[in-house]
Order: sequence, then C-alpha cells, then structure tokens
Amino acid sequence: MIMSGQDETLRHRVAGSGGFIRNLWYVAAWSHELADTPIGRVLLEEPVVFYRRADGAPVAMEDRCPHRFAPLSMGRVEGDDLRCMYHGLRFGCDGVCREMPAREPAPPVRVRIYPTVERWGWLWVWMGDPAQADPEKIPDAFGLQGAYDMRTDVMDIDACWELLNDNLCDLSHLDFSHATTLGASSAVRWSERKPHIEELPDGLRITRWFEDARMAPGHPLPVDTLSSYRYLLPGLFLMSMAWYPAGTAARCGYAEPVEPPLSSRADQQAVTPVTSRRSRYFFATGVARPQANQRLLDGIVAVVTAAFAEDKAILEAQQKIVDITPPERQRFATPHDAALLAFRRLVRARLAAEAETDAAR
Amino acid sequence: MIMSGQDETLRHRVAGSGGFIRNLWYVAAWSHELADTPIGRVLLEEPVVFYRRADGAPVAMEDRCPHRFAPLSMGRVEGDDLRCMYHGLRFGCDGVCREMPAREPAPPVRVRIYPTVERWGWLWVWMGDPAQADPEKIPDAFGLQGAYDMRTDVMDIDACWELLNDNLCDLSHLDFSHATTLGASSAVRWSERKPHIEELPDGLRITRWFEDARMAPGHPLPVDTLSSYRYLLPGLFLMSMAWYPAGTAARCGYAEPVEPPLSSRADQQAVTPVTSRRSRYFFATGVARPQANQRLLDGIVAVVTAAFAEDKAILEAQQKIVDITPPERQRFATPHDAALLAFRRLVRARLAAEAETDAAR
Amino acid sequence: MIMSGQDETLRHRVAGSGGFIRNLWYVAAWSHELADTPIGRVLLEEPVVFYRRADGAPVAMEDRCPHRFAPLSMGRVEGDDLRCMYHGLRFGCDGVCREMPAREPAPPVRVRIYPTVERWGWLWVWMGDPAQADPEKIPDAFGLQGAYDMRTDVMDIDACWELLNDNLCDLSHLDFSHATTLGASSAVRWSERKPHIEELPDGLRITRWFEDARMAPGHPLPVDTLSSYRYLLPGLFLMSMAWYPAGTAARCGYAEPVEPPLSSRADQQAVTPVTSRRSRYFFATGVARPQANQRLLDGIVAVVTAAFAEDKAILEAQQKIVDITPPERQRFATPHDAALLAFRRLVRARLAAEAETDAAR
Repeated sequence: MIMSGQDETLRHRVAGSGGFIRNLWYVAAWSHELADTPIGRVLLEEPVVFYRRADGAPVAMEDRCPHRFAPLSMGRVEGDDLRCMYHGLRFGCDGVCREMPAREPAPPVRVRIYPTVERWGWLWVWMGDPAQADPEKIPDAFGLQGAYDMRTDVMDIDACWELLNDNLCDLSHLDFSHATTLGASSAVRWSERKPHIEELPDGLRITRWFEDARMAPGHPLPVDTLSSYRYLLPGLFLMSMAWYPAGTAARCGYAEPVEPPLSSRADQQAVTPVTSRRSRYFFATGVARPQANQRLLDGIVAVVTAAFAEDKAILEAQQKIVDITPPERQRFATPHDAALLAFRRLVRARLAAEAETDAAR
Repeated sequence: MIMSGQDETLRHRVAGSGGFIRNLWYVAAWSHELADTPIGRVLLEEPVVFYRRADGAPVAMEDRCPHRFAPLSMGRVEGDDLRCMYHGLRFGCDGVCREMPAREPAPPVRVRIYPTVERWGWLWVWMGDPAQADPEKIPDAFGLQGAYDMRTDVMDIDACWELLNDNLCDLSHLDFSHATTLGASSAVRWSERKPHIEELPDGLRITRWFEDARMAPGHPLPVDTLSSYRYLLPGLFLMSMAWYPAGTAARCGYAEPVEPPLSSRADQQAVTPVTSRRSRYFFATGVARPQANQRLLDGIVAVVTAAFAEDKAILEAQQKIVDITPPERQRFATPHDAALLAFRRLVRARLAAEAETDAAR
Repeated sequence: MIMSGQDETLRHRVAGSGGFIRNLWYVAAWSHELADTPIGRVLLEEPVVFYRRADGAPVAMEDRCPHRFAPLSMGRVEGDDLRCMYHGLRFGCDGVCREMPAREPAPPVRVRIYPTVERWGWLWVWMGDPAQADPEKIPDAFGLQGAYDMRTDVMDIDACWELLNDNLCDLSHLDFSHATTLGASSAVRWSERKPHIEELPDGLRITRWFEDARMAPGHPLPVDTLSSYRYLLPGLFLMSMAWYPAGTAARCGYAEPVEPPLSSRADQQAVTPVTSRRSRYFFATGVARPQANQRLLDGIVAVVTAAFAEDKAILEAQQKIVDITPPERQRFATPHDAALLAFRRLVRARLAAEAETDAAR
C-alpha cells in the first residue's frame, strides 16, 4: 500500500512546513499562460488556482474548495468569480462565497486569496503573510516587451529547488555540462577564473569579463565580453551578456562601460519549488532589439533548449544520488562554490528568521 | 531508496490497519468476470483469489500460498481445487492443502477461505468473521436478469472509497460535474432543493420528486419524475428513476405512486476499497424491459460512461488536494451534505464497533 | 509505506544500512557490457561507476562526485582518469582528485575506489572492507571462453534478492512455474524427490540424478542425467547438466562418473541486489563445445528466455503479496525448502557477523 487515505493518515509534510521561505514573490506562470480558463499550480506544496477577472486582472486563490476540498482549478470562471464545478459553490475574487446551492444567502465561508501581480512577463504570487506583500519587492527584470526580443519556455525538473539554485549560481558548469552547447557557443572558458561576486540584500551579483575572445566560434573579431547577472531570492536569474571592442575591459578598469555595447543578450529565469523534490523552471532568452532577428533567435533558442535538457538530466540524476546518500555526508567545496554557498546561507537565514517569527506568535 | 530523502513523514505503513469495515459483503466482481481462470483481486488491502469449482460455484481464497506467499491467482484450477503454480501445492475449496510435492500425505496447512455468494449479477465476498457471513445480509438489488435490461462496466479510481461514497450520497453534483452529460440529459436541477433523506439500518434512502419537467431535453411532454435510491454499506448505490404523468407527485402526496410509471430506469453500483487510496467502482445502468431497446441503451451508456470519466477526474484531483492538506483542516458542510455526513457517521460507528470487538478479544 | 513483509531485510533505509552482506564479491556486469563509456550501477543501494583505464583494466569508483554529488557515470574518461562533467573535477583511478577548476594544485579530496576484477566473463566488485578483497575468494565458474559455448543476458526484477535466492535454491518449481518451458524441455520431474544437498563454506551443492528418462521430449534413447549446481554467496548459480548412458547412475553409486558424459550443458547466473526491492539477474546458458551449434543454442536460449520471464512474473507478483502481508506472518516450509532455508541461515549468519564487527569498531 502506498499512501494514505482519509485525512488523518496523510501525515506527510504539507503546507506551512519550515521547508520553504514563504514571504517572497514567487513566479507562478508566464502571464500569457493564463487566459480564459483557470490554471491550477502547486507551489511550495500548496495548491493555488489562477484565473482572470472580467477586466483581465489575475486572481490567485487557494485551489481547494472549503466544502469537500475539490480543486477550484477544475471550476468555471463566471465574471469576476470562480465556481467550483463539483457542487457549485461560487467564490468572489475576494475569496468570499457568493453562492451556495440550497442555501440562501450564502454563509460567510471563504477561501484564501494570495496577493498576485503581473510584471516583467510573469505572474507573481506572494506565498506568505499578505500584509507584507509589497509589489515593490519584485526586483527589476527585463520583461518581454523591453529592450530585448525574448522567447519563453517552461520545464519541470524532478529535483529540489536548491539544486537548481546551485546550478545557476555557478556557471563554471557551462564548460562541462554544456561543453557542446552553451559552452561551445559562448567561445569562452567559464571555469578558468572565479567571477566577481557581490552580495546584495536579496541575493548576489556575479560578474565576469572575458577579454579578447571571439563572441562566438567563427566570428571575425575578438571582443571583450561582460557577463553580469543577479541571482535573487527566491530563485531569479537575471543575466546580460554584452560585447564591447577588445580593450574595453581594461580601459574601464573592469567596471561596466558607460558606452553602449556592440551587441547584447539577456536571460530571465526563475526557479519555483513545486514540492521539496520537484521544481518548475521558467526561462526566457533574447537579443537586444537592434540586433534581433528571427533566424538569430531561432539559433539561440535551439542551443538554450538543448542546454537546459542537459541541466534537467544532470539535476535529476544528482537528486537520485542525493536520495541514496546518508544525510550526514559532507560535500567538498571548490572555489567556484563561493556564490552558491553564499546563496544557501541567505536561504538558511531567511528560513530561520521565518521560523523564529512563527514561534513568536 | 524509493521515497525522497527529505520527507521522512512519507514513510508510514498501512496494511491490516483498522481503516476498513470488515464484517460486510463486498462486491468483488461482476459474476460474468469469473470464468475458467482464477482472478486475483485486492480488497481492503488483502489479496483474494476467486475461481470456480467444477460445478461452477465460486470460491474466494486468500491469494497467498502459505508456503512462500506466491499468489494463488497465478495458479491452475484442477477440478474443485486450486494449485499454486510456483511450487505445486494444491488446495481444496475448503482451503485445506491436498497435495504437497515430496510430502505424502500433505500436512494440515490451509489457506483462508472467504464466504462468497453470487447474487444480483455480482460476486460478493465477506471480508470479516465468517461466522457472521449471512447471505441474507446482502440487500435486494435489481440484478441483470430482472425488470431492467442492464449494461455493466468497471472502473478503477485512485481515490479513497470514502470520497466515492461522498460523491454518490450527494447527487447535487450532477448539475456541475456533469453539467453537459448526466445533468443535461436528465433535464432537471438536482441542486436546487434538498432531497428527502431517510435513515435505514445500513444506509440511507434518498428521494426526490421533480415536477412538471421534461424527461429529457427535446421530449414533448412534461412529466413528474421520482428519483429514489438507497445508499447502503459498504458502498452500494441502488437507484430507480421513474416517470409519471405531470401532476402525479402532488396527487400522491409525494409518496411513491401505486400505479406503474410511464417508463423507468435503474442504476446498480458498488464501491469497493482496494487500498485506502484506490477504489474499484462497479456500475450497471439499464431501462425497464418494456421500453428497452439497443439504440436507447447505447445512448444511455454513452452518457453514463462520459459522466463517470468526469467523476474519476474530479475524485482523483480531489484526492491529490487531500494529500497535501493538513489533516486538522476542517471541511465546511453545505445543506446537500446531510446524506454524506449521515453515511460517514454510520461508517465511523461501524469501524468503532469493530475496533471495540477486536479489543475485547 | 511501500515495503514490508516477512523479510526484515526489506525494511531498512538507504545506503550503509545493515541489510546487505558487504564483504563479498558481487557481479556488477558482464565484462563485455563495459566498453569506452562509463556505466553507472546501483548495487546494495550504493552508486558505483565502472570505466576502463587506457590499458583496458576496469575501475570501480563511487558514482558520486564529492563536490556536489553529481554522478560520475555522466562523466568522461580521460586516459586513466574520470572527469565529472558537471563542474569538471578529474579523478585518477586511485580515486584521488587530479584537477579542480580554479584551484591549482588540486586539494587532496578523493572518491572511494572499490576493488574490481574481471573473471569468468563477469566484472566483479567488492562492496566491503577493501583489505579483505582477495580475488581468490571468487569461486570457480564456467566462463564464456571455456568448455561451454555460452550466451549471456541480463534482467531487472522488482523483487528482493532473497526471493531470487529462494527461487534458485529450489528447482522443484521447474515442474510448475516452467511447466511448458524449462520443465517440459528437460523431460524429467524435478519436484518428485528431494535432491541431495551438501553444505559448502559459502553456499550449497545441490545434486540430482534422473534415471532412465529421455534427455528431452522426442529424443530416441533414455539416459541417466546428473544435475549438479552450487549456489554460493552472494547469489551465484553454477550448474551443469550431464547425460550418461542409462544405468550409469546406479553403477557409480550415484557419485559423479569418472567417464565423460555423452553431452552436457552449463548455466552460470548471478543475483545482485540493487536495492532491497530490486535485483539484477545475470544469466548465461550454454552447451559443451563438442555438441554446440548455433541452431541448438538458439533453441535453448529461446526456452531459457521464456522461462526467466515466467520467473520475473512470479517473483514480482510474490513481492507485491509480501508487501501487503503482516511481517509477523509465518511461512510454511515444505521438504523442498531445505536448501533455501539453509542458504537463508547462511545469509543471516553473515549479516550478523558483519553487524558484530561493525559494532566492535
């Protein structure tokens, strides 16, 4: 027998456990994923349904009818409301029950509403205390309509979100995992030297200059390349790659040049925990609009898609090794782990702070 | 390693738990499912094999050879006996070992025999104390050879049997889950008013009159419809729908009319727990023989099959929500829950009574 | 919970547990399975990677990079070394890190090396204390290049290794599980009489004479058949079947004849635990070279392949029954269980001895 049954036997850890940071904006979907029909997602082991009101504004609601725990994501949008299509209870976008069959007026039962915001092409949801849900806490990103012509995609990965964070905090793996894809196409060595790491309040800025190297294999002229990204809580990867005439890096003292680059690219990604062992990975990649054209974008997307399939393979294999590894077993840190260890410390600090707040209640 | 390293709470046991009522007749199969070869079923997390003796009488035996626990359902019927086809032990239909290779005479080892009866088109098995297994406790049903021309089917649903009971105790869901199938075809509103509920010793009788409504969309004349069903332990659904001339309901004071209906239908269904998270759902649907014809039956079966696929989808989705819901979380009851709550109380009472008897031993 | 059952070895957690005998040579692969690319295997719930050095010698290494626990089996062989293709650490065949990106010289981190040997067509690995890993402990087998022309295969079986041991220690099941395959083709009754069982230091020798029976259905002359096999720790099955003129058995007093047989066959098999609920089964079957020809071998392989599919089916079904059987439930032993019970005692004794040694440390 595998699981459980009726309520009390379901003793595995669920919503409200200490395993996730709650007071954060999480990416739930690309905005364009949400159209006329509701979509149900599990984030942080909690079921959430998203739908659009008549005016198009998104609503994030607990995906569990308080009546018999049917998923509201199998329900029907009616104006601003969402009706459970199991037994017909209808909830307003404030979570309050508006209609209950055979009971008039409806009693004051309600479902939880999560703060939700659309920004930068993403649908964000706040999984913690609503009073702290300030949209200003959403960091600046590139968006899909800005300076870059971006293509988007989504991937589910059967691995813990922290393994994905590790992966993205250390791009030295491009030379190995992606030796024939991203590594080859960038024509530089990511693992040779440690990048510059700057700690930010909610994450890290990681910067590398590659001097006097070709932009890509076969390109005629060597350039100086500035790769700079922020890796921010809960798991946002916001990177630009900019190419300058060779010599620029040294001339600027390895700071960011004031003049515009010859060309640039951007990547906007987010890691969202589904459970402690499954993650959803949102990614967009694009080219600065002056240089963007469909053929160039097609080529980049092909490389990125191949590379992220490589990431999925290694992450899922790594998770399986972790599964059969005694928990006390220590990992050995390399110089390239500086960023991921800093980010893991940040995660631990936030989890501890939230646990303390919960305990103080 | 099977489970995740992180969730130690996932590792609880079950089998043999007190989670099922044992002293009941359970539906194991449609009679016609059992022919020349044995069939192995898991009921209440116990393995049971069914086969027919030479005279056709069914036998229900523990599906576990006492030698090395191989399933007897992979064995061979020999006259009235069943031979384990792993190492050749042969058991009589009384459960006693009749032959053991290299040991003559066979020692007095035996497998458990379960009382079993064929009635109403079903093969029933008694999962509890054999001394209490009175076939008279099997309730009256319609059967496949009676007044109705019935078609049968079976479906496995990955949800707890209690969620199936809930579903069948409250037909108000026809207006929502089955809005375009059963709900539409019945042309009446099931959720508008509470049905009449009568408590029976082993379940409930649930009755509704729909007055002056069409029998089905497109039918020429409005009729009065009497929907009446018993929902009985362990999970039997026995319903008739009968159509009378408009005005009959009021004239009879909403009792059952003495005159025969214009037409009628019947449904005979059973829910059997496989485990605490998987159920087997047996259903037959039919039309009173005077009105029955193949084209009409084909149409009804098509609607019913579509509707039960809708039930399977919502029940399995609901189970997944239950799985990630904290066990202390309360459900909110609606007026339509009266029957399902009464039935759940009955289930709890029986479970408690059996636990008390077990403890007294 | 998933596991359970009679066998308490099924109910432990991951790596390093006391559930497996560690100080033994286990079969990890057929030698010819290992070519230019590394292969990752799980044995005894431990991940091990195998690769070949430049000179062809096999290396068995912990399949877990000490850096972030990525599997080295997704890595790249470079001369005698294996490079992790996640972040580029390179390990020598002694397990010592030879190269770490951005750190020169590499620090003294290492991965575990397992003793490994190629013999009898198999790649063996020692899963316990390396100091005890004497290749002389590998028992004599037939090999693929010896007196028999052998064909090889591998099968994964979702059942505990002890259930496979049970199966192979008692060939009386040929008359039942394999009634139409191995049983029919051998034209003798395996279950009629108990074989002769001799206890060896590391297992058992099991011998049967079948007198005056045909070698196979349709063969013209009756013969005396000597079936003799060793079943050795950890789960090696080494059998020969030899045919002699009728009357030989009695004439030799049922000892092994000194004269060569008319013809003979050999089977060389190994059971290796992957986890406590999954096993890998290696098997080779062949005919003495004087009699071997491709048509004969094709026929034998067809029967053996069909038979082992029957074993897989019954073993996996048996495991599922064990899973839902209360652990205190006793099995009933038959006369044919003498060998399997002796082998289980041997396993228990070894497990206990290793547990004692571990405790004394």
